[in-house]
Amino acid sequence: MTDKQTFFDKDAFAQYCGIELIEAENGHAEARLKIQPHHLNGVGSVQGGMIFSLADLAFAAACNSYDTPAVAINVNIHYLRAVSEGTLIAKAREVSLSRKIGTYSVDVTDDEGNLVASFQGMAYRK
Amino acid sequence: MTDKQTFFDKDAFAQYCGIELIEAENGHAEARLKIQPHHLNGVGSVQGGMIFSLADLAFAAACNSYDTPAVAINVNIHYLRAVSEGTLIAKAREVSLSRKIGTYSVDVTDDEGNLVASFQGMAYRK
Amino acid sequence: MTDKQTFFDKDAFAQYCGIELIEAENGHAEARLKIQPHHLNGVGSVQGGMIFSLADLAFAAACNSYDTPAVAINVNIHYLRAVSEGTLIAKAREVSLSRKIGTYSVDVTDDEGNLVASFQGMAYRK
Amino acid sequence: MTDKQTFFDKDAFAQYCGIELIEAENGHAEARLKIQPHHLNGVGSVQGGMIFSLADLAFAAACNSYDTPAVAINVNIHYLRAVSEGTLIAKAREVSLSRKIGTYSVDVTDDEGNLVASFQGMAYRK
Repeated sequence: MTDKQTFFDKDAFAQYCGIELIEAENGHAEARLKIQPHHLNGVGSVQGGMIFSLADLAFAAACNSYDTPAVAINVNIHYLRAVSEGTLIAKAREVSLSRKIGTYSVDVTDDEGNLVASFQGMAYRK
Repeated sequence: MTDKQTFFDKDAFAQYCGIELIEAENGHAEARLKIQPHHLNGVGSVQGGMIFSLADLAFAAACNSYDTPAVAINVNIHYLRAVSEGTLIAKAREVSLSRKIGTYSVDVTDDEGNLVASFQGMAYRK
Repeated sequence: MTDKQTFFDKDAFAQYCGIELIEAENGHAEARLKIQPHHLNGVGSVQGGMIFSLADLAFAAACNSYDTPAVAINVNIHYLRAVSEGTLIAKAREVSLSRKIGTYSVDVTDDEGNLVASFQGMAYRK
Repeated sequence: MTDKQTFFDKDAFAQYCGIELIEAENGHAEARLKIQPHHLNGVGSVQGGMIFSLADLAFAAACNSYDTPAVAINVNIHYLRAVSEGTLIAKAREVSLSRKIGTYSVDVTDDEGNLVASFQGMAYRK
């Protein structure tokens, strides 16, 4: 996981947020976030931007797990459940891969396996 | 803007990221981000999660600018241009408002007015 | 499947397009389309609106498979592969169901099981 | 509008549905639909697939209004208002155009100018 680690180590924002990249290989990836007070919004739940950023990191790691660099062009996210403590887990899987476009689906779950958000991302392969 | 300021002051993540809420009234809102090194990804551009979070804060402020609390249920974002320095501006406007559902469009632009991302959000009104 | 059949029998557009509803129960549904010349676009592939309409019918049948009527508020679709003959199959499954919002995922596949489109829909429950 | 007319004349599904292409030039386009009984769903409103197909035709015409052929890869649609009679108008405008990706926004309105659906489409340019 050397190259993926390099990819992640250079991502200042992911690190600033406290995201941890667990795995990234062959079009799938997993990232985690231990929920802390600075991740919360005004009503005490993990902020939507933080949930998105966790899922997005798993997506970026998955679509860059090959030799071809890829950039996100579109994302759609459904917020399904509020969460305020514990650990969030984002698992990205590849839905489709063509020469220029990759499509990925990311599930974000809480400690008990409840689905918190469903994320679909599309990347352009350079 | 007292209530909106309270709404924003309580949002720990938005503040942690350095987002500034400029305006929030009658279904529209504006937020800004002065780009700093910890906002960047591995290739030196503002990270997708950071761009989303800026747009999302403007969306949240706009849909909560009435007396009815609202929560995001779906967002779709298109990334149109990479940016690495200066200030990002997110302007949210209301596309449609019914009793239970509000739909918003957010444009994120750079210092020179170039469109960086186009964001559409849907909120459920409690 | 009496009620679901009634739901479908009243849908003039689905019938005009030649969509067949195979199953609709407990949050999932399946619909099919035997590809005919009037389903094609200018380059001889099934038109995007036709693929969407097939997936959408499966989505509508799934989210209306309970006693609570539901209406579509948002859909996101990824087109993954062009197809020009045979039968298209759309299978809808429930991703999440709360009191007022249901979220569904629909896969559209061709005769050989290749993924043609991936569709995510959100419905508001009245 | 010779080439655009050719593009449209070959689209069997658009014609089968009764869509009329009014204009297509330089990244924008307009299409119309006179609502007829076979466009309706089980509750007497224009079916979601029909509304999508109208918007999609305007999108396809807009992104193919240059010399470079383009194919839809992603669409997001928000349904904002039910409609059951009169004429629907879809106007597509270009949000962004790069060498390989074009992003378009389509508003669907009713006879009185009310917004019926908001549609965002992304196309890959071959």
